[in-house]
Amino acid sequence: MNISTKTHSLRVGIAGLGTVGCGLVSLLQAHADLLQLRCGRPISVTAVSARTKNKSRGVDLKNIKWHDDPIQLAQDPDIDVVCELIGGSDGTAKELVEASLTAGKAVVTANKALLAVHGAKLAALAESKGVVLAFEAAVAGGIPAIKVLRESLASNKVTGIYGILNGTCNYILTTMRESGRDFADVLKEAQNLGYAEADPSFDIDGVDAAHKLAILASLAFGTVIDFATVAVEGIRSVSAVDIQYAHELGYRIKLLGIARPTAQGIEQRVAPCLVPLSSSLAHVDGVTNAVIAEGDFAGRIVLEGPGAGGGPTASAVAADLVDIACGRKTPAFGIPTSRLVGSSAAQMEHKTGAYYIRLLVADRPGVFADIAACLRDQKVSIESAIQRGRAVNDAVPLILTVHETSEMAMERALAAIGALGSVATPPVRFRIEAL
Amino acid sequence: MNISTKTHSLRVGIAGLGTVGCGLVSLLQAHADLLQLRCGRPISVTAVSARTKNKSRGVDLKNIKWHDDPIQLAQDPDIDVVCELIGGSDGTAKELVEASLTAGKAVVTANKALLAVHGAKLAALAESKGVVLAFEAAVAGGIPAIKVLRESLASNKVTGIYGILNGTCNYILTTMRESGRDFADVLKEAQNLGYAEADPSFDIDGVDAAHKLAILASLAFGTVIDFATVAVEGIRSVSAVDIQYAHELGYRIKLLGIARPTAQGIEQRVAPCLVPLSSSLAHVDGVTNAVIAEGDFAGRIVLEGPGAGGGPTASAVAADLVDIACGRKTPAFGIPTSRLVGSSAAQMEHKTGAYYIRLLVADRPGVFADIAACLRDQKVSIESAIQRGRAVNDAVPLILTVHETSEMAMERALAAIGALGSVATPPVRFRIEAL
Repeated sequence: MNISTKTHSLRVGIAGLGTVGCGLVSLLQAHADLLQLRCGRPISVTAVSARTKNKSRGVDLKNIKWHDDPIQLAQDPDIDVVCELIGGSDGTAKELVEASLTAGKAVVTANKALLAVHGAKLAALAESKGVVLAFEAAVAGGIPAIKVLRESLASNKVTGIYGILNGTCNYILTTMRESGRDFADVLKEAQNLGYAEADPSFDIDGVDAAHKLAILASLAFGTVIDFATVAVEGIRSVSAVDIQYAHELGYRIKLLGIARPTAQGIEQRVAPCLVPLSSSLAHVDGVTNAVIAEGDFAGRIVLEGPGAGGGPTASAVAADLVDIACGRKTPAFGIPTSRLVGSSAAQMEHKTGAYYIRLLVADRPGVFADIAACLRDQKVSIESAIQRGRAVNDAVPLILTVHETSEMAMERALAAIGALGSVATPPVRFRIEAL
Repeated sequence: MNISTKTHSLRVGIAGLGTVGCGLVSLLQAHADLLQLRCGRPISVTAVSARTKNKSRGVDLKNIKWHDDPIQLAQDPDIDVVCELIGGSDGTAKELVEASLTAGKAVVTANKALLAVHGAKLAALAESKGVVLAFEAAVAGGIPAIKVLRESLASNKVTGIYGILNGTCNYILTTMRESGRDFADVLKEAQNLGYAEADPSFDIDGVDAAHKLAILASLAFGTVIDFATVAVEGIRSVSAVDIQYAHELGYRIKLLGIARPTAQGIEQRVAPCLVPLSSSLAHVDGVTNAVIAEGDFAGRIVLEGPGAGGGPTASAVAADLVDIACGRKTPAFGIPTSRLVGSSAAQMEHKTGAYYIRLLVADRPGVFADIAACLRDQKVSIESAIQRGRAVNDAVPLILTVHETSEMAMERALAAIGALGSVATPPVRFRIEAL
């Protein structure tokens, strides 16, 4: 079979030589023969650009053109595809991608922030120039979530996407469970080990997972990417006590990205959730990521793998390059941009769900009655309650789980509970997702 | 982007209207608009063929041409792609696929037996005619194992494939564990529930899993498909006692397909194995399938999902049709057939591994010493031993696990043990796979 009309080399320019950029150079060099065999033509790195030229990176850059300014890659006549591995939703990364597409070059990027914020416009630009904009590496590292959603599930109505999309958070939550230690302590260790950034807020506040979720949702539901309406909660509120009680109740706490169509629009949320031990997601530990996609015909497809790291991310970038080299084309978000539907965000107060609630309450008679009354007033039904241990400073943890209720009723009940004199700190609540 | 040069309908002929064939007709009708949107052109069923014409199938076949003889589909000028959903490694299925490819029509098939036995020749025929031969549905139902191996991991050297590839066996093993019941009893139930065939040997003797493994191995390692050298053991030898002891030792018993390159050639085996509870595969229960692919850059990618059934299998067939409609082409086994390497099968006696052994031994002094001597003589080192319970007919089960040893040493030791007068029945042994 003639797998490509082109037999000359696919010439790649790489912007950004961090872990992923260097991983990509290594991969393309190490597997040059394999790639030529599988693509019917060589894939070669012809130019690179990074902030510092003279730096030991452990990869062989001789015979590769150097550009001090990454934007020059867009104009380099010896480049067919630009790989943008700089990062950041704006600035140089955006400028480079725009310039490259405008110049008629294909672009492969691992930049979820850029796509989450500017993806719709960039896809339209790529389409108008007749070139590919590909981003397998932007979501869940080595896991082929983009290709599976865009191609393997193309004949399905997708009814839900569920993912563990941030390795830093999953590492922290896993270590908290295994060690019994608290959040701040484990975060510090993760920072020392290089699993969390010096400024960890992008990861632990859920923003990174939300970027990835917005990309998956656009692909799954054929909607214009809409990062602004993702409801985002991070993991700072998860305590060792929560993890311990969740375990006792038969759950794991995971930072989940969830996107699903509802009668009121597309629900997109990132939040720590309780997941039953029977779920595949409960057993995804450490820096591993996972994506579940539910199709109306395919059923529930689970994908797991390394969510970050030079090798896995480089492999995902290379998969896009292979598609381009083989002449396999797909619109960036699966369908022509003119056919993407404006996303109507679901109003969260209409959502229903079961909840886990942790309160710190005074250890005296009548307290439970007051709390139960607040729940009853909002028609929220208690499923289980755990209170044990000695009072410290006259306060003990009270753990409740409640049956399915609306988010609005839950928030009203919690506001009333929080206002009780016998409740010491603001209530903590996580949704229970019966996946 | 111009995703396809063709805007006319992709015209599909379907041979076989069982669960999958009818599922495919339903899918293509239910999602006609979605498919047109995602492919840029309609996908329409123009003709079908099955054994019995007048039979209620719950799908709408009006306005679809009927052929009494499926081979006529190959000659029908109103068909671009033939979907072969008849099954069987030879006979009508093979004839139809050959005739269709010869006539220059693309073929999509769910037929693992046909591919396992004749895949290399059929791929060469497709290539010589410049048409697609696609078979996502042939392995693991709705799980996109073929596309992920062939495209997403194209830039990786694959270092191993591990799979739970037969839903019937996984259902039986799961139910045995959950209920404590024995093999024959659970098989009978599975037959009553329709999860196992009246003649179940194809599934429970591991042949079906071996077909699928051979396909995955060819794709992963770029070798000519080689079903004949797959070492196959089924699950008839797994007893309730084994499952119970495995659990006690921290394992699940799963029928695994394993393929990996070794210094002596490609190892391909299907056998019941002990998998540690920490492995993703340990938690894949019931009729669910799973495939793990290890890439040297991507790391370990785990795919799970429904391994059979009309909906999932139809979804996989439709994914191939979408690729064809969009003009996305890939050689059947990932590379041109002339470049596929003749497979050199690894000699199993050179393989090393840890083992679980179950013996039925006389309950008297000296027996253990005799057994231990047989192991020592082959330099096989005991890791753990469990013997408990009362002797029934003077015999009790003795469970051993042994450290990594060669398969040859293990088989010699077991032959010696089996010859001991104090050992009542032939030894049962399963490999321990530390996945």
